[in-house]
Amino acid sequence: MPDKLMRIRRADEAMRPTMIAIAGDSAAGKTTLTRGLVAALGGERSISLCVDDYHRYDRMERRSLPFTPLHPSCNHISIMEQHLQLLAFGRPILKPVYDHRNGELTRPELIEPHPLVIVEGLLPLHTRLLRACFDVTVFLAPPEEVRRQWKIMRDTTRRGYTHDQVVAELERREPEAERFIRPQRRNADIVVAFGRLGASVLLRPTIRHPNLVGILAATGAGGVSLSLTRDPDGIPVDALHIDRAISAVDGDAVAGAIWEDLRSADPLPDCLGLLDGTHDQPLRLVQLILLYHLLSKMNLVTATATTRTHPPLAAGSP
Amino acid sequence: MPDKLMRIRRADEAMRPTMIAIAGDSAAGKTTLTRGLVAALGGERSISLCVDDYHRYDRMERRSLPFTPLHPSCNHISIMEQHLQLLAFGRPILKPVYDHRNGELTRPELIEPHPLVIVEGLLPLHTRLLRACFDVTVFLAPPEEVRRQWKIMRDTTRRGYTHDQVVAELERREPEAERFIRPQRRNADIVVAFGRLGASVLLRPTIRHPNLVGILAATGAGGVSLSLTRDPDGIPVDALHIDRAISAVDGDAVAGAIWEDLRSADPLPDCLGLLDGTHDQPLRLVQLILLYHLLSKMNLVTATATTRTHPPLAAGSP
Repeated sequence: MPDKLMRIRRADEAMRPTMIAIAGDSAAGKTTLTRGLVAALGGERSISLCVDDYHRYDRMERRSLPFTPLHPSCNHISIMEQHLQLLAFGRPILKPVYDHRNGELTRPELIEPHPLVIVEGLLPLHTRLLRACFDVTVFLAPPEEVRRQWKIMRDTTRRGYTHDQVVAELERREPEAERFIRPQRRNADIVVAFGRLGASVLLRPTIRHPNLVGILAATGAGGVSLSLTRDPDGIPVDALHIDRAISAVDGDAVAGAIWEDLRSADPLPDCLGLLDGTHDQPLRLVQLILLYHLLSKMNLVTATATTRTHPPLAAGSP
Repeated sequence: MPDKLMRIRRADEAMRPTMIAIAGDSAAGKTTLTRGLVAALGGERSISLCVDDYHRYDRMERRSLPFTPLHPSCNHISIMEQHLQLLAFGRPILKPVYDHRNGELTRPELIEPHPLVIVEGLLPLHTRLLRACFDVTVFLAPPEEVRRQWKIMRDTTRRGYTHDQVVAELERREPEAERFIRPQRRNADIVVAFGRLGASVLLRPTIRHPNLVGILAATGAGGVSLSLTRDPDGIPVDALHIDRAISAVDGDAVAGAIWEDLRSADPLPDCLGLLDGTHDQPLRLVQLILLYHLLSKMNLVTATATTRTHPPLAAGSP
């Protein structure tokens, strides 16, 4: 079981990078979410990469193929697994590059090891071995009509498609989205749905989240609520809702309290929530929760590493 | 010591691929030598790759850089080490591609695992970890004036350079050839010098060669000689010389005897020694010696694997 071996070996590495996956369908908001995290963390500590670069065929070749880029057969899944394992062990990789502007596969780029690695894309949670590489897993699940609007907007303005082409492509992709993209949802620690009324965030108890019960009680902030519910599999989860209309004061109060929970020496980053030049409170708070996970795991690792005087043995260490 | 770990782990893998390195300066004859091996082995059993694809910069970028492609800093050495290790363990890689025709880095290609892997290029023996990936190592050392002629011929006819450009480039590369390429010679099991009078082959006792003493005595062939000598480090070696003028009959006798030594069920391949449409006896016999090493190691591995009823344990197995 290579995925179990991967988990065991990673748990044994004091200085292993912390890795987060942000999975979701095309135009679900992965890049927007990622951009704020990288801006807050800085290029010294963090790097982001998109696993859609592991497309096996370019746009021209796909025309004669019976599947869309959403299909695992359309991607180098085993190379993706290999590269994510290498990154998880702090090794560099030479990552392939897919140019979304013209649909061509081009010169690969060197990705150097970083303490924090943010991996976004269509299929980063598709296999057990891929999932074993991550400390935190996120799935973006906006309402389909919202996502369709976003995709039409983006692909007609930045990727050189016509409106009708995008609509036809959405139709063509639907069976594969249902079969390969959406099933990743159940393997996510955090499921985020950005919609017209705000953000809904499912927080699964598979990882330790910030103490939102305490934070919301202490701040008394409006426009944000937490409720205990069950996920579709019947497992207890926290459902956080952040109103689109939450006030800046309430947003600041919640953000400040989450940040304080981290006990970071740095100030709360002010680059979160940026959306088309404005500050979006739901986006900001979701980014902050992900930042919380990345930084708390990194701090933990650093703390463990500094109290150790010898590197752990290959077997039998805690 | 990652190179030692690599050797230990490879020795423990029953079905690991057999890997040969063919190192040498530009236009030393690496591709010609490799082509015959791949033709004889077939694409099912073997694959060849060129580590010059690991160039870090394209031709345009190199214009403003203080080194030539011969410099390790001009190559992704650590990625080369990583990929050769993966291949040595029977894993696929996504290999970068450098297009020699226009000097551009382009779309990478998937290399699937094969039982026999032939790796040629400028620097495949540059580091200990690279060398640890190979079962057989070869260095091509033709006389410099012969190599210069070959390079001028090739680069003016197939790579779009003028005669003066190639001569200037040879000049510019000389210090790096001396510093990085030629030192690989001492790490080769076999050193081959193709020259005007034939091929000189240094056979170091670092691996077990075909029984040439017995073969030459039994066939009584002329045009080929074996002498005991010392390499530049004072180590005893066999020096095989194959005359350019060796007769087809003598060439056939020696080739047949080497092939018989392998006890292969297949007939002696007739695609060896091909050079510009003619059959070259020295090239043919050198290719046959390399083929001998590849096939005998592969047979050995297969034999070992079939007599085992359980896979070896990670530690303590023979």
